[in-house]
Amino acid sequence: MVEGKINEIHSWAAMKPGLAVEPYTYKPRPVGEHDVEIKIKYNGICGSDIHAIKNDWGNSTYPIVTGHEIVGKVITVGEKVMKFKEGDLVGVGGHIHSCLRNDCNACSRDLDPHCSECMFVYGSKYPDGQPTCGGFADAIRVEDNYVHKIPESLDPVYVPPLMCAGLTVFTPMLRKGVKKGDRVGVVGIGGLGHLAIQFASALGAEVVAFSHSSNKREQSLELGASKFVDTSNKDEADTVRRTLNYLFVTSSGESNQYNEYISWMDFEGQIVLLALPKGSMTFHPGEFIQSEVSISGSLIGGTKYADKTLEFAAKHNIHPMIERFPLSKINEALEYVDSGKPRYRVVLESD
Amino acid sequence: MVEGKINEIHSWAAMKPGLAVEPYTYKPRPVGEHDVEIKIKYNGICGSDIHAIKNDWGNSTYPIVTGHEIVGKVITVGEKVMKFKEGDLVGVGGHIHSCLRNDCNACSRDLDPHCSECMFVYGSKYPDGQPTCGGFADAIRVEDNYVHKIPESLDPVYVPPLMCAGLTVFTPMLRKGVKKGDRVGVVGIGGLGHLAIQFASALGAEVVAFSHSSNKREQSLELGASKFVDTSNKDEADTVRRTLNYLFVTSSGESNQYNEYISWMDFEGQIVLLALPKGSMTFHPGEFIQSEVSISGSLIGGTKYADKTLEFAAKHNIHPMIERFPLSKINEALEYVDSGKPRYRVVLESD
Repeated sequence: MVEGKINEIHSWAAMKPGLAVEPYTYKPRPVGEHDVEIKIKYNGICGSDIHAIKNDWGNSTYPIVTGHEIVGKVITVGEKVMKFKEGDLVGVGGHIHSCLRNDCNACSRDLDPHCSECMFVYGSKYPDGQPTCGGFADAIRVEDNYVHKIPESLDPVYVPPLMCAGLTVFTPMLRKGVKKGDRVGVVGIGGLGHLAIQFASALGAEVVAFSHSSNKREQSLELGASKFVDTSNKDEADTVRRTLNYLFVTSSGESNQYNEYISWMDFEGQIVLLALPKGSMTFHPGEFIQSEVSISGSLIGGTKYADKTLEFAAKHNIHPMIERFPLSKINEALEYVDSGKPRYRVVLESD
Repeated sequence: MVEGKINEIHSWAAMKPGLAVEPYTYKPRPVGEHDVEIKIKYNGICGSDIHAIKNDWGNSTYPIVTGHEIVGKVITVGEKVMKFKEGDLVGVGGHIHSCLRNDCNACSRDLDPHCSECMFVYGSKYPDGQPTCGGFADAIRVEDNYVHKIPESLDPVYVPPLMCAGLTVFTPMLRKGVKKGDRVGVVGIGGLGHLAIQFASALGAEVVAFSHSSNKREQSLELGASKFVDTSNKDEADTVRRTLNYLFVTSSGESNQYNEYISWMDFEGQIVLLALPKGSMTFHPGEFIQSEVSISGSLIGGTKYADKTLEFAAKHNIHPMIERFPLSKINEALEYVDSGKPRYRVVLESD
């Protein structure tokens, strides 16, 4: 059994529902033979962290250590870890275990986030009943299958948003086969959306950015969109009717206008939900028959896609736009993310 | 200009909303250079005929001559008709004109029923403002692009249901790529559903038939289903959870349980609406994200698919189940179709 180097983890945990975390020390699980111990340097803050801290989904158990866009250096590896060595720069996302067997209906198709054994970096339990604990901490121990090497050309401070937001938008583009010349819409220009524009554009697609905030127009075009549509302006929306092959919905507001979205799609276009908007969606069956448009959704991405996301981002110089906070100011940073003001993702930096 | 042989058409028309038709004589349009004049022998009755006669969709104009599953013999051809000659046995479906240009966004992709110039065999208007008139008549004149040669091995009395119901179910199977080994569900075992079972099974798929009428169990298995699920029996439905690659919804009742349908689908399974169920469909976005299932719809099929449907039915001995009525008893036949009793399609026979 390999000894870990950090045997008391100093983290930031929410102790009860509400938007506040406080210092919380816990003893990590032993370094298993397939585990990698990581000294954490950067953490992205994602909307899901806020929801979990506040117990918006009603399933949080406290104390809870959130954080699932993690970047750090390998400091210890278990006996059977082949892919990593001390000093490697690595990333970890929200997903830390699935069976990865070839007789698993999910894993055999690289849909490992749907595996029945799937564990998330926080909010899940290890087989011994201990809760998993996320990245708002000085260290973490993670199974090697879910640790991802960071390509040298990527500046590590920009990597956290790729581990969740980037993976979430890029996975369905690959699985659905977005390619050069496709017309791709992105609804909602925020943490996910500003990356979706870059990934789709790097795949050679012609990208249309949709937002009700017209002040995101210039930035969307700079990020690679060839057109911006202010969704509150009917004339602008009219210019894209029946033109899109794909529409990635990254907005989680209640104002999603699904019927309007259908009208933007070319025949056999695909609308893909990536965020979890509030409220329900109502359709008349005729809308599907008349349009031949399909609606589906996608849940983050499997471990192979995490590697592909990092490689593709490195190759195509995809750059999350971030604002930096020291980890010690995490409460201030959480409030700021909750306000919706960041352009577009916040990264916490350990001292 | 070629002269037609039947210059006064004796048809059965609805004169007002309500389920009744009466003899109605009209003068057909001239035989255009691309027109084929057909002496009609058989007509299928489809649910849409009943809806149009009763004005269920609110857009019928009277008198209206319905009938869009037409089989007959060519008696005259326009000067430029190359594909047909007098005496050919042919079929005509609901769709009789689209531009078929390669710069048309719909036609260039064999989605000609979505072309902006699309005309239906009844309920549309010719450019001169005259209404199109359907098949409940002794003859019809139709543009050659929308006349389909009937393969010799098909008994013509079984062909009418292929011209609409068969085309509607087979087209999305081809476009979406249903193949050997796929697990295909069919909801609703009626005019469309009993053909969907046969087509999917002939494509090599493993077919599950779903119906709330358990008395359709044996017949579904005889038609090629490998399993029947009584949708009112939860235990039976439980045996198919997360197993289907495709689900074709042919039921137009109000009892469609879309959320239940999603639970039957394998990851990335496709639910395809073929009928126009009443009522609306409500989803929570999370259902799409958690399941990775998509929902879409399909509107009949283009002219190329009509030929493919006939060829495939001939090759694989696909046999609509029909009940026959003489055309003179059309009112009785319409009542019978409206009652939902036919097993599974009614064909009218001219004297």
